[in-house]
Amino acid sequence: MIIGIVQGNPVVGDVEGNLEKAKNFILEGDEKGADLILFPELFITGYPPEDLLYNPAFLEKSQKAVMELQFFSKSVKSAIIIGAPNAGNGYRTPDSLKGQPLYNSAIVFHNGEYIAKYDKIYLPNYGVFDEKRYFIEGRENQTGSIFTLKGIKFGLTICEDIWSKRHEYFDPLKECDIILNLSSSPFYQGKFKERIEVVSSFARHFSKKLVYANLVGGQDELVFDGNSMVCNEKGEVTAFYPAFEEGLFFYNTEEIVTVKPERKKYADILEALKLGLKDYVSKNGFNKVVVGLSGGIDSALTAAVAVLALGKENVKGVMMPSKFSSEGSVTDSVKLAENIGIETFQVPIENVFGSFEKELHPVFKDKKPDITEENLQARIRGVILMAFSNKFNWLLLTTGNKSEVSVGYCTLYGDMAGGFSLIKDVLKTDAYKLSEFINETYGELIPQEIIIKEPSAELRENQKDSDSLPEYPVLDKILTSYIEERKTVREICEEMGNEAQVRKIINLVMQNEYKRRQAAPGIKLTPLAFGKDRRVPMTNRFYEK
Amino acid sequence: MIIGIVQGNPVVGDVEGNLEKAKNFILEGDEKGADLILFPELFITGYPPEDLLYNPAFLEKSQKAVMELQFFSKSVKSAIIIGAPNAGNGYRTPDSLKGQPLYNSAIVFHNGEYIAKYDKIYLPNYGVFDEKRYFIEGRENQTGSIFTLKGIKFGLTICEDIWSKRHEYFDPLKECDIILNLSSSPFYQGKFKERIEVVSSFARHFSKKLVYANLVGGQDELVFDGNSMVCNEKGEVTAFYPAFEEGLFFYNTEEIVTVKPERKKYADILEALKLGLKDYVSKNGFNKVVVGLSGGIDSALTAAVAVLALGKENVKGVMMPSKFSSEGSVTDSVKLAENIGIETFQVPIENVFGSFEKELHPVFKDKKPDITEENLQARIRGVILMAFSNKFNWLLLTTGNKSEVSVGYCTLYGDMAGGFSLIKDVLKTDAYKLSEFINETYGELIPQEIIIKEPSAELRENQKDSDSLPEYPVLDKILTSYIEERKTVREICEEMGNEAQVRKIINLVMQNEYKRRQAAPGIKLTPLAFGKDRRVPMTNRFYEK
Repeated sequence: MIIGIVQGNPVVGDVEGNLEKAKNFILEGDEKGADLILFPELFITGYPPEDLLYNPAFLEKSQKAVMELQFFSKSVKSAIIIGAPNAGNGYRTPDSLKGQPLYNSAIVFHNGEYIAKYDKIYLPNYGVFDEKRYFIEGRENQTGSIFTLKGIKFGLTICEDIWSKRHEYFDPLKECDIILNLSSSPFYQGKFKERIEVVSSFARHFSKKLVYANLVGGQDELVFDGNSMVCNEKGEVTAFYPAFEEGLFFYNTEEIVTVKPERKKYADILEALKLGLKDYVSKNGFNKVVVGLSGGIDSALTAAVAVLALGKENVKGVMMPSKFSSEGSVTDSVKLAENIGIETFQVPIENVFGSFEKELHPVFKDKKPDITEENLQARIRGVILMAFSNKFNWLLLTTGNKSEVSVGYCTLYGDMAGGFSLIKDVLKTDAYKLSEFINETYGELIPQEIIIKEPSAELRENQKDSDSLPEYPVLDKILTSYIEERKTVREICEEMGNEAQVRKIINLVMQNEYKRRQAAPGIKLTPLAFGKDRRVPMTNRFYEK
Repeated sequence: MIIGIVQGNPVVGDVEGNLEKAKNFILEGDEKGADLILFPELFITGYPPEDLLYNPAFLEKSQKAVMELQFFSKSVKSAIIIGAPNAGNGYRTPDSLKGQPLYNSAIVFHNGEYIAKYDKIYLPNYGVFDEKRYFIEGRENQTGSIFTLKGIKFGLTICEDIWSKRHEYFDPLKECDIILNLSSSPFYQGKFKERIEVVSSFARHFSKKLVYANLVGGQDELVFDGNSMVCNEKGEVTAFYPAFEEGLFFYNTEEIVTVKPERKKYADILEALKLGLKDYVSKNGFNKVVVGLSGGIDSALTAAVAVLALGKENVKGVMMPSKFSSEGSVTDSVKLAENIGIETFQVPIENVFGSFEKELHPVFKDKKPDITEENLQARIRGVILMAFSNKFNWLLLTTGNKSEVSVGYCTLYGDMAGGFSLIKDVLKTDAYKLSEFINETYGELIPQEIIIKEPSAELRENQKDSDSLPEYPVLDKILTSYIEERKTVREICEEMGNEAQVRKIINLVMQNEYKRRQAAPGIKLTPLAFGKDRRVPMTNRFYEK
């Protein structure tokens, strides 16, 4: 028995395109002798389709695509398991789909016949997930979800079902030989290990083989990493498929192998960034991106990753020096641009800044320079970069890292301006490590000068980040404990001492919720990013004593 | 029997402040002879507390506040019903609260004793609500939720419970004399009528009196409108309490009256805008706001509402004319400022624009002027307004209306810059009607010149909104059908004809999701605003054929 595992990269909303892609995978699988072709969760719509699921015209289209696959299954020998939203079998008009209960389902076709169906039981409604907003929970112990092919009994599950750790609703699986799981499980650092543990322990619990097909590709802030796999009855991983790579992979149920899959942190982050950026750019109809180059590590890293993801001809750099810019600001950026091979432009901001100061002088004349003038410089740069973006239709990448964004060390409509915030979930200390990893892997793309210089926003004379913030290793430890590990302030103070510093940082995190609410989207890389997984009120007077 | 209905305005996260407020209401109620004092849903934390509920230090604080209320109830004769998150009775450390199942509960104290408790059964997880993200559903038919006071039996329910239209989980209510409902039910146009119908039909179903206590106040994008009420056994409204007003109101169960409550659309919208703005400004520690005045209806309306909400001394206007500005742009804004009594500043943008053009010329020289130059002007204004905001600590109000924001007829980091987007859920046609309502009510605040002029962005020679968009009554009808009424494109085309126009508009709505993702928060006024209630992917290739 050969199972074709579709580690596919659909586009959310593009039902026709996804159907076309599905058919091509099916033809390829059939040609290569697959008995069964397994798609990931909601492949027909892409994942997550979000409020598109409220649109009856969308549901009708998705349902028609599934019916077309049933018909298409006549033309191949393989059985097909597709993931799709499901409001019942047979054709229904958009009108009759309005307000209907909807399930997140796996549907099996063979020789043009409907063979089996399974409705997801455990709907995740935490983190980035809102499935209870859209779907009804499937019935417990669905006997109709078991089907037999060539004498082998298969049992269906979908994504969260195997994460729930509650097995009592899956009694029918005891009857089957092989458990199948359709997943759309997004990436974050460490997820890979967790996921193997989950797949493995579910297989072990039921003493069955488990074939796990995961989505791949970028969708807004999420990256799906593939990493599909197979576990045997003992929970050992016996087959492992590529990370961050679209493809159809084959599992022969007769084969007995055991593999020890391994992934490395910075390699994974880099691949997630590359795939997430590439898909955001291409799925939204862009070709090229533009980055403001300050001479600092964040813009250098952003530009380098963009070149690795999109090719050097599709990345443009703009240097915008001011009187506070160090000499290295331009020369280091020029060296970076040479290393990564991108075209650059230079637009100094001094005269524009002067003209703003002149116009504002009648109002501001009695006031001392303060953060206003610093923000003004950052915003002039934002305006210039957006002018490039508008004039040439280049997507502007904003370059803030997670440490800055956490404490609000960034300017709204200034350095925060842009359509995609590539490294918004990369802590500053990780930005260095990732830069070093890139240089080790690809040769020196990011000049050493940039890696070793002291971080500065260069918005006033001799400014250093350390004037306002603790050293980054300390800052990042506080941020990780508070944001990702959800430790209380008291716990962090007990661990780190320096209570005043810890409180100051955490207050900054809370006070800057309003800035992040207007931030560009960027790729989720950690268990808790500043995206749909963090829903903290802006108006909020909670301070931990 | 006298029931004190607390139509209170808590601050999210401010557990101490809310506790203090609760005690004051209790003392007032006790003094005025209330036997029972009923608070709205989750009064202790404010609503919605969102991810604060994941913080065990926050839960501990909230739980301590509830224990303090129990103790406090010794000092008064009244019984107290408080709404709070609940992970079980008695004190628990933050550590022991981590990952505990949490209920959305109503807890009753009398004479220092714990009397009854009810856990909300129906948790809304649609629209702006994410309650299944945080809470466990209460058990069906909770007998412990019935309590007796002075021989009268009371039954507890919380908000969505009475909206669910499923009565089978509320059998214990059949035993009681009076049903109580603790709500945090946010405002939108028409909600008032829906809500009376809901309260009324629940009361009628059980043939019981129903006392309904609703929250009041603004929290980020939501405004809670109060409008607490009482229905009799036949579902007739017998008592009705003020809209948009904080206070403790009294219901005497012996009294027999029947009232016909009525609310008017534009009066309600105006009150919602005033309360929502006032609370966003004050709860976030601001005093003053600044508005860019273009001479158009949106900025005039925004400034006028701000004056009505905050007082004229707390509103500042900035005029920023360019060579494309009509004469009326400044003179009409001056007249507006006189009418509403606010201080203004004038900062022309011509020279700044010239300096940008000069610096960008080496790159843009071979390119024709296009949308880039239009956006540049809008962004210069955004930068100037943010400089005022930074220098004087005035919250910048952005002035875009829902029609513009829907189709992306606005500039990111330009006219979209600002901390609060007051009228983002007001359609252009409603902006006119609301302006006329304000003038009828308060005398001519918004000059007729502004109301009658043809809408224009004034970003190029002789530009009119109607160059790019259908007339606003047509546009607004398409938008309402598509966004709020969730009609399919086919349905809208059937109703309105002109298929090409309908498709063009709806494609614009979809293509501009990315802009709205970076928009400032603003007050939800309709059943479907561009806030937490609309979760549409940015990367999305669904087009309705």
